[in-house]
Amino acid sequence: MIHRLEPLLNPRSIAFVGASSKEGRIGGMPISLITRYGYEGKVFPVNPKYEEVFGLPCYTDIESIPQPVDLAVLAIAASDVLAMLKRCHAVGVKAAIVYAAGFAEEGEAGAALQNEVELFADASGMAVAGPNCMGFANLNTQAHTAFASVFNTSSMQQGAGHVSLLTQSGNVCAAVYGLLRQLDVPVSHFINTGNEACVEFSEYLEYLAEDPDTDVVVGYIEQLRNGPRFLAACETLRQRDKMLIALKAGTTAKGAAAVQSHTSALAGDRRVYQAVFEQANVIEANDFAQMALLAQLARLRHRTAGRRVAVITMSGALGAILADRFIDAGLDLPDLPADVQAVLRKGIPDYGMVGNPVDVTGNVVNNPGFVHEVLAVLANTDALDAVVIYAPGYMLDRMADSIAAVAAEYPRFMAAIDTGKAATRDMLRDAGVAVFDDLGRAVSALGPFLLWQERRRCAALSPAFKTGMNAVAPAQVLVADSSAFPISTTVTETQALNYLSRFGVPVKEMSSAHSLDDARVQAAALGYPVVLKIVSPDIAHKTEVGGVVLNVRTETELEQKYRDMMARIAQLAPEARLEGVLVQKMETSGVELIVGARRDPVFGPMLTVGLGGVLTELYQDVRHSLLPVNADRVQALLRELIAFPLLDGYRNAPPADLAAACDAIVALGDAMVAAPANVNEVEVNPLLVRRKGDGAVALDALIVTGN
Amino acid sequence: MIHRLEPLLNPRSIAFVGASSKEGRIGGMPISLITRYGYEGKVFPVNPKYEEVFGLPCYTDIESIPQPVDLAVLAIAASDVLAMLKRCHAVGVKAAIVYAAGFAEEGEAGAALQNEVELFADASGMAVAGPNCMGFANLNTQAHTAFASVFNTSSMQQGAGHVSLLTQSGNVCAAVYGLLRQLDVPVSHFINTGNEACVEFSEYLEYLAEDPDTDVVVGYIEQLRNGPRFLAACETLRQRDKMLIALKAGTTAKGAAAVQSHTSALAGDRRVYQAVFEQANVIEANDFAQMALLAQLARLRHRTAGRRVAVITMSGALGAILADRFIDAGLDLPDLPADVQAVLRKGIPDYGMVGNPVDVTGNVVNNPGFVHEVLAVLANTDALDAVVIYAPGYMLDRMADSIAAVAAEYPRFMAAIDTGKAATRDMLRDAGVAVFDDLGRAVSALGPFLLWQERRRCAALSPAFKTGMNAVAPAQVLVADSSAFPISTTVTETQALNYLSRFGVPVKEMSSAHSLDDARVQAAALGYPVVLKIVSPDIAHKTEVGGVVLNVRTETELEQKYRDMMARIAQLAPEARLEGVLVQKMETSGVELIVGARRDPVFGPMLTVGLGGVLTELYQDVRHSLLPVNADRVQALLRELIAFPLLDGYRNAPPADLAAACDAIVALGDAMVAAPANVNEVEVNPLLVRRKGDGAVALDALIVTGN
Repeated sequence: MIHRLEPLLNPRSIAFVGASSKEGRIGGMPISLITRYGYEGKVFPVNPKYEEVFGLPCYTDIESIPQPVDLAVLAIAASDVLAMLKRCHAVGVKAAIVYAAGFAEEGEAGAALQNEVELFADASGMAVAGPNCMGFANLNTQAHTAFASVFNTSSMQQGAGHVSLLTQSGNVCAAVYGLLRQLDVPVSHFINTGNEACVEFSEYLEYLAEDPDTDVVVGYIEQLRNGPRFLAACETLRQRDKMLIALKAGTTAKGAAAVQSHTSALAGDRRVYQAVFEQANVIEANDFAQMALLAQLARLRHRTAGRRVAVITMSGALGAILADRFIDAGLDLPDLPADVQAVLRKGIPDYGMVGNPVDVTGNVVNNPGFVHEVLAVLANTDALDAVVIYAPGYMLDRMADSIAAVAAEYPRFMAAIDTGKAATRDMLRDAGVAVFDDLGRAVSALGPFLLWQERRRCAALSPAFKTGMNAVAPAQVLVADSSAFPISTTVTETQALNYLSRFGVPVKEMSSAHSLDDARVQAAALGYPVVLKIVSPDIAHKTEVGGVVLNVRTETELEQKYRDMMARIAQLAPEARLEGVLVQKMETSGVELIVGARRDPVFGPMLTVGLGGVLTELYQDVRHSLLPVNADRVQALLRELIAFPLLDGYRNAPPADLAAACDAIVALGDAMVAAPANVNEVEVNPLLVRRKGDGAVALDALIVTGN
Repeated sequence: MIHRLEPLLNPRSIAFVGASSKEGRIGGMPISLITRYGYEGKVFPVNPKYEEVFGLPCYTDIESIPQPVDLAVLAIAASDVLAMLKRCHAVGVKAAIVYAAGFAEEGEAGAALQNEVELFADASGMAVAGPNCMGFANLNTQAHTAFASVFNTSSMQQGAGHVSLLTQSGNVCAAVYGLLRQLDVPVSHFINTGNEACVEFSEYLEYLAEDPDTDVVVGYIEQLRNGPRFLAACETLRQRDKMLIALKAGTTAKGAAAVQSHTSALAGDRRVYQAVFEQANVIEANDFAQMALLAQLARLRHRTAGRRVAVITMSGALGAILADRFIDAGLDLPDLPADVQAVLRKGIPDYGMVGNPVDVTGNVVNNPGFVHEVLAVLANTDALDAVVIYAPGYMLDRMADSIAAVAAEYPRFMAAIDTGKAATRDMLRDAGVAVFDDLGRAVSALGPFLLWQERRRCAALSPAFKTGMNAVAPAQVLVADSSAFPISTTVTETQALNYLSRFGVPVKEMSSAHSLDDARVQAAALGYPVVLKIVSPDIAHKTEVGGVVLNVRTETELEQKYRDMMARIAQLAPEARLEGVLVQKMETSGVELIVGARRDPVFGPMLTVGLGGVLTELYQDVRHSLLPVNADRVQALLRELIAFPLLDGYRNAPPADLAAACDAIVALGDAMVAAPANVNEVEVNPLLVRRKGDGAVALDALIVTGN
């Protein structure tokens, strides 16, 4: 099946409406490029003022073009766009690019105009790119529709490109293109999405995921408008062994404000995007140079790799620095196995290092046979995933033949860092070795690349990951009774706990008392100490009105504290309808977690887990995941918490019931996925995790509803 | 006074012992460089094999040189070094450089040899550099003594240099030198310290701090051997308005192991170094490119600057990205004041941004008068410290005259980032504008540079900072009775609390009971609930033997728990000498801090403050400072804690007594500074900070002694 964006991204014929014969004009630059670089499709300039543009016959209007047109490029004012789109559609044009600004980014009138364009595009099925975009380029066919001076200032590629740019900013697209060309990386698609009125980021990504000319997508994202489609495209990328590198803007409050001002996009929550990127194995980048280096590295993605790196230097200092930087970047430098060390020690003098980092010392470069032996053993041991060699200038040159030979013999990923001016850089690149000229940049590219390689391997193994990514419905689907959740009012704790328990969340045994006598009887039955909590649909935050009393130890205390609580509530919430008092047995030990699930506006149901208590908010020690999840995935999230040791027998404490905690969290996630649409948030705080074998239990729950 | 390193670093005459006529040999390369680049001092090659070396008469031995020699460079084997040093000294040579490896870095025999060299240097007063070093270069006099091929592969500078390299690795020295030359930054001193047998890092730094040819020091540090001298040199740098940029290696466990293997140096604690660097306003760098850019930036350090940055772009996307990156780097993008926004809005269309980041939109570049007006108002407002302009290629060129004019009119720091190929980069640099060609590198240099500027301003204002740095003795000096602290045994809690209270640390009222009856009487006098703690010089960790019982609520409970505690201790620590039981009133509310002071082996007494409790160790939310401190400094440290809000009225809790906490911590610091030499560590855990007005109190204390 041909993707509907094919005429837009790989057109066989292009009309330029508003064509100009001046290279410096918007209507002229793309035609100049397209004629200069030999696009083989048909090109039809349209402008009643000209007979000819850049040697091509120019047409009076779109209707007078005698042949079918795939793509119309509209270099005309915003106010003329809608009418022209209709005329294009009438003569069978399948796609259009709208340069004009003056739409949603410019107030209400612009937004109304954009809305009309959107409605027409939807109804007609035309693939309309922009508005407010810079135009595209398909560098493999030289189909230029972009007015970007970077095509004049950068060298035009010779070979076929497999790196596609997909950005929500024309300036970013041009800046990264320039850097890719500086690295001599050929490009396939140059796409900047503009206002995304009719075609949004994820649809382009979907196209590129299937595009045989794209192996790598370099993305710039301000806002995703369709999370599920984005995730589906990421899954296709994964299946096709392609890489997505993305810079997400608006990760700080100031950046988010700038994003919103830029294209009225909402930047969303940094941590949600980070969690989604990690789960979908998207490499999150921070700057343009790093993006370009990662795109260059991608050609080596079929070599075996992962986080366990051996660092080889001729300098103890450089070994130390690289160890620090690689570990800071999330990689490991495992100690080398004894048999590997033994091979190294045969030729490395005592003052060199055979651990990791390895300091082979300077003289070794004069012994290429030994260099080969060292690299071969490092390329072969199961204890490693990657080998990085730091050798400046002539040092690298002397080792280069050995490095290239080992790269040919073993599939393991190898990289060289040369801060000098080695003559063998290109030879090594041709041999399948990554070569960097700067230490900081090497680390900034290798860190994410090697972790991507590792996650790619794990993703292929872990059903939990795929389950999370594909948003498959949970095994246990209960049809919830949506009438149980009145919109925009508070669901009581009892209702919330009841709902969660239906999905398998273990909840604390409790009873509802409607009088002091009632409470006294129930407390005696449960056994002291107990907890008292007010039940009212009008009180969402019970502690704020003194509606929770912990550690009631005796019947005498119960009487006193029951009365005190009722008096406080009568004073602080006199209007609240009271449905009674919850009596629970007090739990005195265990680890408290906070577990929440909410409907993210972009990605849908998301889980949050963290350590409970007053410090959660300050330390932000929480992890997020797409829902649903399985127990393995939850355990992985919990293990990423800095506070995880508290669950794992910290300071001689007994280990907590991790398995029970995971099951309870999976159940909460299922409850969110199955919840009626008016449920925005489900939270258990705390989920008390008792010692191993004793289970976990939800002590309190909150369900937030809304429109 | 002439510094004793003058003959080493600025020699008027140099003898090369082991001179060679081959440029590729260690004994030849520096003579080749020195003759090629026109060193004006005397040069005396020494080698009986040659009549002449690089056109210079060669001498048979050091004794036959007819003129005084400042510096002898020894290109001879390790085993010959000591004897040659003696001969050099005998003929009046003042300094020597020892290239040879085979000393402390190579096992016991080498260490013994190095020790002999060290003893001779100390006794003779000769300034002996190395051993195991690459040699130096004074680029302003072209006094070359280094065998570093980077002098052949990099272009030799024309003008006078003011950036000195001071590294604990020859390879790092060469790598950073190469990058500085790529940026066309001229260098003054090229120093790599080798094994530092006789001259260590801080002594070189001391020289450079006073050196009129050095404004900036670029350092690489594996281990500092003399913390106080380092701090004193930093203070001189501060007074002379010079900058120290340092990369500290061994900040991870693997890096530290590599450092130790490299030159048997101990890398020390990352957090201690970070605290010291921050206090001494040393810029901590992560990679070589960043170091070189920072050194280049230093020439603009006399422009006014600080963390409050305005970002100007022609692209909303770039504004968002730069906002994210600058904020991640610790800078601020304050909202612009209304009057500034009003000026901007006059010429910026509605879809542009007049907040911060500012998106002036692309058309503005065609209106240089307005660009000038915008930049002038940003360069003048009190709401900002620095202005950063992102404009690629021709966009920057069109604004360049306006930028240069404003840079001439106002002293405010200004930087431009051009990811295109602007023709005006050099013109802007000459005008005093920093110019970067890469976004990530711009941020990595501007972040630390602007924070350095701000700390420099604060350092000049804050006596606390200076007090901390100068290690002035505390105002209240008590002569401690060192006999109170037996070496290598445990000081009891009572002794520790008594010692601390003499310095003004408020300690909990307590009484020592010697029997159950005693305890009963004292508990009644204090009022329940109380705490019981065992007192024994043989029990350092009381909780491990059940020697602490909290929250004893009644006399009945007291009797039971007293007996239980004694039974546990009899079982778990049967040999311990018991001195009684401490009875304290139980505190039931307040915020618990952990406060410690220990003798750092490099920097001396250091303070650590953090939130108390089980999570301290996991979250590592602690801050360090040199001692002594004053209350302002302590408050600044506490405010840097992520958990600080707990002290400041978190979630409607009453604010804690911050002033009392600060006073207690100052007192603990003074107690450490005044403590006898056998005290290694003093800790109060917890320091309970009660609500404002109710003070703070040490509930437990520990003093660790040793040799």
